[in-house]
Amino acid sequence: MNEAAQTLDGWYSLHDLRAMDWAAWKTLSSDERQAAIHEFLHFLEKLGKSEGSHALYTIIGQKADFILMLLRPTMDELNELETEFNKLKLAEYTIPAYSYVSVVELSNYLAGESNEDPYQNPYVRSRLYPELPSNQYICFYPMDKRREGNDNWYMLSMDERRELMRSHGMIGRSYAGKVKQIITGSVGFDDYEWGVTLFSNDVLQFKKLVYEMRFDEVSARYGEFGSFFVGTILPPEKVANFLHVNG
Amino acid sequence: MNEAAQTLDGWYSLHDLRAMDWAAWKTLSSDERQAAIHEFLHFLEKLGKSEGSHALYTIIGQKADFILMLLRPTMDELNELETEFNKLKLAEYTIPAYSYVSVVELSNYLAGESNEDPYQNPYVRSRLYPELPSNQYICFYPMDKRREGNDNWYMLSMDERRELMRSHGMIGRSYAGKVKQIITGSVGFDDYEWGVTLFSNDVLQFKKLVYEMRFDEVSARYGEFGSFFVGTILPPEKVANFLHVNG
Amino acid sequence: MNEAAQTLDGWYSLHDLRAMDWAAWKTLSSDERQAAIHEFLHFLEKLGKSEGSHALYTIIGQKADFILMLLRPTMDELNELETEFNKLKLAEYTIPAYSYVSVVELSNYLAGESNEDPYQNPYVRSRLYPELPSNQYICFYPMDKRREGNDNWYMLSMDERRELMRSHGMIGRSYAGKVKQIITGSVGFDDYEWGVTLFSNDVLQFKKLVYEMRFDEVSARYGEFGSFFVGTILPPEKVANFLHVNG
Amino acid sequence: MNEAAQTLDGWYSLHDLRAMDWAAWKTLSSDERQAAIHEFLHFLEKLGKSEGSHALYTIIGQKADFILMLLRPTMDELNELETEFNKLKLAEYTIPAYSYVSVVELSNYLAGESNEDPYQNPYVRSRLYPELPSNQYICFYPMDKRREGNDNWYMLSMDERRELMRSHGMIGRSYAGKVKQIITGSVGFDDYEWGVTLFSNDVLQFKKLVYEMRFDEVSARYGEFGSFFVGTILPPEKVANFLHVNG
Amino acid sequence: MNEAAQTLDGWYSLHDLRAMDWAAWKTLSSDERQAAIHEFLHFLEKLGKSEGSHALYTIIGQKADFILMLLRPTMDELNELETEFNKLKLAEYTIPAYSYVSVVELSNYLAGESNEDPYQNPYVRSRLYPELPSNQYICFYPMDKRREGNDNWYMLSMDERRELMRSHGMIGRSYAGKVKQIITGSVGFDDYEWGVTLFSNDVLQFKKLVYEMRFDEVSARYGEFGSFFVGTILPPEKVANFLHVNG
Repeated sequence: MNEAAQTLDGWYSLHDLRAMDWAAWKTLSSDERQAAIHEFLHFLEKLGKSEGSHALYTIIGQKADFILMLLRPTMDELNELETEFNKLKLAEYTIPAYSYVSVVELSNYLAGESNEDPYQNPYVRSRLYPELPSNQYICFYPMDKRREGNDNWYMLSMDERRELMRSHGMIGRSYAGKVKQIITGSVGFDDYEWGVTLFSNDVLQFKKLVYEMRFDEVSARYGEFGSFFVGTILPPEKVANFLHVNG
Repeated sequence: MNEAAQTLDGWYSLHDLRAMDWAAWKTLSSDERQAAIHEFLHFLEKLGKSEGSHALYTIIGQKADFILMLLRPTMDELNELETEFNKLKLAEYTIPAYSYVSVVELSNYLAGESNEDPYQNPYVRSRLYPELPSNQYICFYPMDKRREGNDNWYMLSMDERRELMRSHGMIGRSYAGKVKQIITGSVGFDDYEWGVTLFSNDVLQFKKLVYEMRFDEVSARYGEFGSFFVGTILPPEKVANFLHVNG
Repeated sequence: MNEAAQTLDGWYSLHDLRAMDWAAWKTLSSDERQAAIHEFLHFLEKLGKSEGSHALYTIIGQKADFILMLLRPTMDELNELETEFNKLKLAEYTIPAYSYVSVVELSNYLAGESNEDPYQNPYVRSRLYPELPSNQYICFYPMDKRREGNDNWYMLSMDERRELMRSHGMIGRSYAGKVKQIITGSVGFDDYEWGVTLFSNDVLQFKKLVYEMRFDEVSARYGEFGSFFVGTILPPEKVANFLHVNG
Repeated sequence: MNEAAQTLDGWYSLHDLRAMDWAAWKTLSSDERQAAIHEFLHFLEKLGKSEGSHALYTIIGQKADFILMLLRPTMDELNELETEFNKLKLAEYTIPAYSYVSVVELSNYLAGESNEDPYQNPYVRSRLYPELPSNQYICFYPMDKRREGNDNWYMLSMDERRELMRSHGMIGRSYAGKVKQIITGSVGFDDYEWGVTLFSNDVLQFKKLVYEMRFDEVSARYGEFGSFFVGTILPPEKVANFLHVNG
Repeated sequence: MNEAAQTLDGWYSLHDLRAMDWAAWKTLSSDERQAAIHEFLHFLEKLGKSEGSHALYTIIGQKADFILMLLRPTMDELNELETEFNKLKLAEYTIPAYSYVSVVELSNYLAGESNEDPYQNPYVRSRLYPELPSNQYICFYPMDKRREGNDNWYMLSMDERRELMRSHGMIGRSYAGKVKQIITGSVGFDDYEWGVTLFSNDVLQFKKLVYEMRFDEVSARYGEFGSFFVGTILPPEKVANFLHVNG
């Protein structure tokens, strides 16, 4: 196989972003809303009991009201969980905002040379099968590498790409301890090629990191970005309050 | 006729992707849903009894909930079956997500020279009139060849295109046994020029194949891609379960 | 006037594409649907009694369910007929899919030199005021000539354009007897510059014609295409069957 | 101030385009529709009594059913009249199609040199504060000047732009007596930079004018066009007929 | 950190633009509307009592009916206030039009050299934590710096960018006293990179300022603009009148 295309792939991932239809939600009786919230919390609880990881955050602005990010060992499990979510009472009061299907991915650009099976390496495993952090803030955006005129990432040699990615990665590493980053790949799975999911306790670090990277050639010449979503954590104990309405 | 434009064309094809309106679907009584499911299963059964082939898969993510792919000897049959589908009870509870009208196509780039009628060649026939496989996963995406500045596929000579397609095809062949591929052409029929439908029992092979090809000049410089849809097979015996809701 | 901009213009044209809202249509009683169909057929019959021409075809895929193409001597008549159509009972159960306002046009690229008034030439008249054919299939798409960097049609000289159009036209002529073609111009009337409407008894000829042309420099470098719609004829005697639903 | 950016600005302008929701409109009783039409006519009558000008035309095709174009001395009046329109009974049965906020503008490219205050010049005043004509046809489209690679209008010198605009203007002037043209500027007010509103008693002149201009370098290299809307005049005495429906 | 990417960041900002669903709003009883208006005014009043600033303007044209701009010390507060707004009775009768999440930003291009902490500088503080003005007019638009072929802002050196920004800033300063400008940054927070919010008592100054800047290389070659929204102030005492409908 073309060396350039080798990646390590971990858990499958679904980012499911939804807006609330607050007006319709209010037409339910208080008891019905209570039941729907209870059912949703039960669904979240169940998520925590099988292999994988998940995270729930509210999203700021009109693009969505919340994001549920799901990691699972197989695409089938993601599919089943998404369908189960769709059938929840709460889902009837949500409007699809955006979804993104991918798989946790480590690129081979920075790979060391070794004969060991990377899938047995504990560090690699911790990155391919990550426990999603519970930081205060999330930032998610999908992206492509550009293929346009002289700015065609896929026409560069492996060496050129490796060199560019090295300096790109150094920016990322300078945010270690401030921002956790999960890269998921979606070539063949969704419209963009990669998803970047960032977690931090200081929301401003997202801006600093993404802005600094934009001056790096990999982003400046070769990055094409989709929508950016930013939000704050919504732990189960705050779900009822988030969904509380009068009347 | 311009040699470049010669293709072999087989069965006509309709990819019909739909989202479920779960909230509306739940408003039906259990008996009404049962009747709608029965009617849909009957429609699927009838599909299996006439010339052609079809496949039903669920789709992961918000872009669609399922895809029905139909192959038939004439465009008229596709049109009639689509209308019949639209009139089913179940269709009232679906939302159009995407459709794609095309015809199974073999390009002439790799054609050998021969005096025989290719439409009588059994191997060619098996590819033009294929039985759709029942692999666990499907991947579908439409695409164009780029016509942009110096990256204009249609301004290349036949020899240049043949040479480029040869190396492109070699990547595809290296996935033989892992991924089955059906190419359908839609120039003059739909907005994109080709549709690629992949089948596999290992969903990760879609990513590997599409990603490896992206570094190939045909894709890197000349490929323009539409939406990617990925899903898992939905055999008739699982339809009722997929459509089951409480209430 | 700039020679380049001279065209011969005939009947005004409206392509009106609509999707059916089958779910709403089913909520009518059988008698109400019967009355709506009768009213629609009466409208079609009336269309046939005034100067101009029209055609009704179903459309394959989700982009639309049918197209009504109308040719009339004045823009005012098109406007009135469209409003009359909008007020029909049937129209309440349709969803606008696409429309295209234009006028039948002959370009001056291939014009011979002559002192006669072309509008008195019987051949020219037959092309400017055409009876729409009743072939089994229709193909419609709008298009622009590109104005982008070095591929700017409107910066070419008249001679360059005439030369390019000559070879382009030769491809079209090679399909004579297989495909009938009506070109309508919409500069100043609609978003695209031209509409191409093809009629044939062999749907595959649309693909062959459009694909062969794509390798021609006029399309390869200068063509920008909108959506493609393909369909099958819907004669009045089949309208009731097309609109028949149970319940 | 940069000479290039100097313009003369007159009345503020709102183009308000709407589709009719005919199905909902029919659900009103005949008396209710009569009342809504009466209220709308009263609104139009009131428009005619304050400073400014307005025009009402039906629009052909699905993009809109009618356009109300409003000129007023202040942005505040436009805002108030739009809100008043939105609160009319009729507005409940319309669907927003497109709107465009701008101000009548004369560019300085063709300005003579003079010490007089142009705002006191009667000819200039007649163009900045125009009475909208009541020709049979209207054509409206918004546009930008391109800023793309080598085709960047805003990087040209004032002299280059003036020279280009001169030949452009000569085409416009050759249509004097056939087409009246009102240019409105919307930089800082709306998404496009200019709006072109044409009036004529011969709808074909719109096509001839816009097509001829497209070969002029200003349009060919530097014009980016939005949607084109074309329609026929709707005088108050025909409003009731336009809005008449059975049932 | 890369010098280029250094910014000073102040209050977090949400631009929330909404259209009114006037038809639905009219279905409320006069008392219910009164209660909804009262609740909304109470919400606005509460906004005025915590740290930050806000502004409410009507918007002209169909893109939105009003904008609420909110500045707060933390992203969490913005999120909570947005959710609170969404749960208001009035919000049920609004349709999301556009939103923009950002943070008040001062770039480092024009920074003097100094050892002092800029966050302690009173002038800097007044710009990072601004009281939104109550001018008659607002103009808001998001924008990007272009990364396209030879027009790639992010590939310029810091010196080139500083030089370009200097002349750009001089245009802005020439409008001092006429237009107040607040720049907010959204890299990593929203789809565009910056938001420009202008306030003035002379709406024409928005057009003059934005048009003059467009000839400046920073905008001409490197500016990519989103939608422009322009509106007039809606002080609390005029809210009831704005929302008043008959029936």
